[in-house]
Amino acid sequence: MTMTYDSIRAVQWLGDRLRLLDQRLLPREERWFECRDYRQVTQAIKELAVRGAPAIGIAAAWGVVLAAREGLPLDAPLAELRAARPTAVNLMWALDRMKTAIAQGADTTALEREAQAIQDEDLQANRRMGDLGAALISPGSGVLTHCNTGSLATAGFGTALGVIRAGAANGRIERVYAGETRPWQQGARLTMWELVRDGIPARLIADSAAAHLMRSGEVQWVIVGADRIAANGDTANKIGTYQLAIAARHHGVKFMVVAPSSTVDMATASGDDIEIELRDAAELLSVGGQRTVVEGAEAWNPVFDVTPAELIDAIVTERGVIERPTAAAMQAMFGR
Amino acid sequence: MTMTYDSIRAVQWLGDRLRLLDQRLLPREERWFECRDYRQVTQAIKELAVRGAPAIGIAAAWGVVLAAREGLPLDAPLAELRAARPTAVNLMWALDRMKTAIAQGADTTALEREAQAIQDEDLQANRRMGDLGAALISPGSGVLTHCNTGSLATAGFGTALGVIRAGAANGRIERVYAGETRPWQQGARLTMWELVRDGIPARLIADSAAAHLMRSGEVQWVIVGADRIAANGDTANKIGTYQLAIAARHHGVKFMVVAPSSTVDMATASGDDIEIELRDAAELLSVGGQRTVVEGAEAWNPVFDVTPAELIDAIVTERGVIERPTAAAMQAMFGR
Repeated sequence: MTMTYDSIRAVQWLGDRLRLLDQRLLPREERWFECRDYRQVTQAIKELAVRGAPAIGIAAAWGVVLAAREGLPLDAPLAELRAARPTAVNLMWALDRMKTAIAQGADTTALEREAQAIQDEDLQANRRMGDLGAALISPGSGVLTHCNTGSLATAGFGTALGVIRAGAANGRIERVYAGETRPWQQGARLTMWELVRDGIPARLIADSAAAHLMRSGEVQWVIVGADRIAANGDTANKIGTYQLAIAARHHGVKFMVVAPSSTVDMATASGDDIEIELRDAAELLSVGGQRTVVEGAEAWNPVFDVTPAELIDAIVTERGVIERPTAAAMQAMFGR
Repeated sequence: MTMTYDSIRAVQWLGDRLRLLDQRLLPREERWFECRDYRQVTQAIKELAVRGAPAIGIAAAWGVVLAAREGLPLDAPLAELRAARPTAVNLMWALDRMKTAIAQGADTTALEREAQAIQDEDLQANRRMGDLGAALISPGSGVLTHCNTGSLATAGFGTALGVIRAGAANGRIERVYAGETRPWQQGARLTMWELVRDGIPARLIADSAAAHLMRSGEVQWVIVGADRIAANGDTANKIGTYQLAIAARHHGVKFMVVAPSSTVDMATASGDDIEIELRDAAELLSVGGQRTVVEGAEAWNPVFDVTPAELIDAIVTERGVIERPTAAAMQAMFGR
């Protein structure tokens, strides 16, 4: 029997306001909150109440709609939303789409249609990528994922987690492991919440247990999302992704990046040109609001890293699969 | 000016009882507690109130002294202490030394002398290893360490952290990074506490940021301790060590294991023969006593892994340094 696992929608447009599931409180509490102006959306993106590259882009598009409904000039909202976070290019991509619509004279209703299209297309892309990615996996496989790339991070279904949903539904994936993803614990708090909720058996591991897991032979693929894919296939994603890619190659485990084409940034030549967000040391020095490290200690807290294309076995987008990505293959699929 | 950094003694014999600094509460609270019988020592080892391979061995030796002072037959105490934790061989080594003394007819006073010798020799070994290890490092280097291998984990000064103390004192080490070491946070809670206390500048990182750090060129050596070193040089240590070794080799960063000869187990042929302790999933599902993962979730929590000898550039013991360890080199230094 084929089952589909897909029960969560974390970004909801209610006609005059944006409803968001507060991802900072999960899994302890499922609290929704509503953004009635673009400033609240900007704040929600900055503070990680909404996170995940595609979800950030979608929320930002609705932020522009809220600004338009207020009758504001849209240059400042576009700029403030754009500056909310630096690494995920989907944010810039979604805002560019809204900006193009504005330049073409779209009224508020037309902007609302554009934001809805961005959201709907993301969901469709995820279902398509689920099928494409799962088809690469041999039946009975085990997989490891990192961070949260599921319904919470997207319009729904998910990117890497969408492939896992599709693969779990069609029997190709039998074992799922999720890295907890320090410091923000997206794997522990969010991915495990989605997997348990959808009834997909999974086990949490410490991020540092990944190589030991690979050595045991339990996993055949590492499957991750992306915040930005450069023109040569280099991929920025959650801190720790690069380390998983190195360990995967060392063990002959395959490495798959799953992201909609809105994550591809052909204007960025390589990973060296991607700005890596450094967040506050406090995120490492405290856990759950409680200080865990001695006073006076310092920390270094980059929250993304870059995995070079040569460590990636497959980039899956809704347009198709690129195996062993190169600049030429990227250009053929994503060039103008 | 050369400074020495060494101000902590976490295992103290008070003549009739053992005083331990409770490592579960650091850095929030420096609470000492006293063990007046061997059962309390066994419990302290099981519950990680005392941890670190050499410190466990030392505490266990004092546990035997406490049992002898009670006038108990010593077979049961020896067996119970031995079973307290499975991976660190220093525990078995220290108990074997006490057992040999018992077999040779040692009285309580003689057993006390033997335990004191085990403790004193460990401190001497650490100072010697500090000099040997630091001598391998080029002036001005950056280093990354994992878990806690300092005064808290030993009789004092530390193994890997002893090398860092020695290297920071003589200027060879300029930058120190410590991985937080999930799930028990020994790096965040204990290593940072020792480093701040001794005035050695250091920065904490998420375990998953190590490869990104290495790529930045900030570190030239990874320096770790060991819980057991097999006859071929394969080394069991805290979960995550193996991953660091793979990433280090990938980046041309050197990898050093620092441990007293009591950690070498020539009776274990290779890493495949080392029992890896699996601890309760709850350690990953909660943080600071608060559940962070959805109910119904499972976790896999191995707390050690094995780094194969071929990924190790140097094993430093108080007997000397073995570069690029092989079974033959190990046999030459540690064989009978």
